[in-house]
Amino acid sequence: VLIAIVLFEGVTALDAVGPYEVLARLPGADVRFAGRRPGEVRTDTGALGLTIDATLDEVPAPDIVVVPGGAGTRAAAGDDDLLAWIRAVHPGARWTASVCTGSIVLAAAGVLRGRRATSHWIWRDALTAFGATPVEDRVVVDGDVVTAAGVSAGIDMALRLAALEAGEEVARAIQLGIEYAPEPPFDSGSPASADPALAGRLRDAARADPALRFPPVA
Amino acid sequence: VLIAIVLFEGVTALDAVGPYEVLARLPGADVRFAGRRPGEVRTDTGALGLTIDATLDEVPAPDIVVVPGGAGTRAAAGDDDLLAWIRAVHPGARWTASVCTGSIVLAAAGVLRGRRATSHWIWRDALTAFGATPVEDRVVVDGDVVTAAGVSAGIDMALRLAALEAGEEVARAIQLGIEYAPEPPFDSGSPASADPALAGRLRDAARADPALRFPPVA
Repeated sequence: VLIAIVLFEGVTALDAVGPYEVLARLPGADVRFAGRRPGEVRTDTGALGLTIDATLDEVPAPDIVVVPGGAGTRAAAGDDDLLAWIRAVHPGARWTASVCTGSIVLAAAGVLRGRRATSHWIWRDALTAFGATPVEDRVVVDGDVVTAAGVSAGIDMALRLAALEAGEEVARAIQLGIEYAPEPPFDSGSPASADPALAGRLRDAARADPALRFPPVA
Repeated sequence: VLIAIVLFEGVTALDAVGPYEVLARLPGADVRFAGRRPGEVRTDTGALGLTIDATLDEVPAPDIVVVPGGAGTRAAAGDDDLLAWIRAVHPGARWTASVCTGSIVLAAAGVLRGRRATSHWIWRDALTAFGATPVEDRVVVDGDVVTAAGVSAGIDMALRLAALEAGEEVARAIQLGIEYAPEPPFDSGSPASADPALAGRLRDAARADPALRFPPVA
């Protein structure tokens, strides 16, 4: 199972590493972190470097594609080489997946047109501009395209994907291996359960930041 | 808030990146990924490179220390320089934390002697050899030492730590920012809820692997 996880400058680390930690445990998994140029990219905070091991051209036929999100997706959604690669590999891939605002990159590549999809709750509505139907679910499976909500949702997405790819018993073994029995200390993980004032503050702050405005504008 | 996250060859990526994604969002957070030598280390699967930005000597007085786990902790628990650094920085740190088998490294440094602590469920009992009392909780706070269960538990641990460090409102905002409202597709995330036969198979396979044997033996 060849799994391509896309990296770019400004990626949110957990968007990529959550699915990686699950999918790398699939039987026969061959995970390739792929991007424009081999070498280090820095995550959205600048505090962590992740390594691109392969150029996109070197992974022309992945079985599973994962596109993470982060502040860097604004640039990634305007990167013609990346979008062309997504369009080229998606038809042959068994699953094309995203986490957080990675769905905006899939949308910009045209993959979500006419599909149901999700994204980080702050930016989910931006999907409509690309012909997709935003859905509030944490993980949305539409045919061979699987999208996840924000950041931490990539773990749930990848476990769903692991079950679709290799069966429920394999997915359950992976879940136990990574001891994924979450106990969030608070109930504020989604805008539906959080204090509306808190959600409003986060939404307004994010939308006021030009670096985070979607869809990409000139 | 100076946060040192230790990296080493064979680290489990999510052990480090889960807490990073939470703690980097603390107000005034300054996260330093620290280890023996600046440059890339490869994670336990070999499929991902993470960058060490600072030597341990360059981070002599962190406010928060996080030690992740992974197959590499067997070597890390025998790394005298790392253990000496942990012993040196722990008294001045407000919080010394671990994820997964990172607690074995804290234990080898003597930090867990006489304390309650946890680890990945397969290796939790190994803590007794270092004078610690293994506890089945997902996150264990004993004074200024916070230990987490396996891999994904680092996210829950870091949210607890964020609340202890900066207050519950800050922790709730971080939780909403990373949309942490988990929905595991199955209930097999802990040995208490998983099929006992599955848990037994995973435990036996892990314990049969000499690279994963704890406490470190010559």
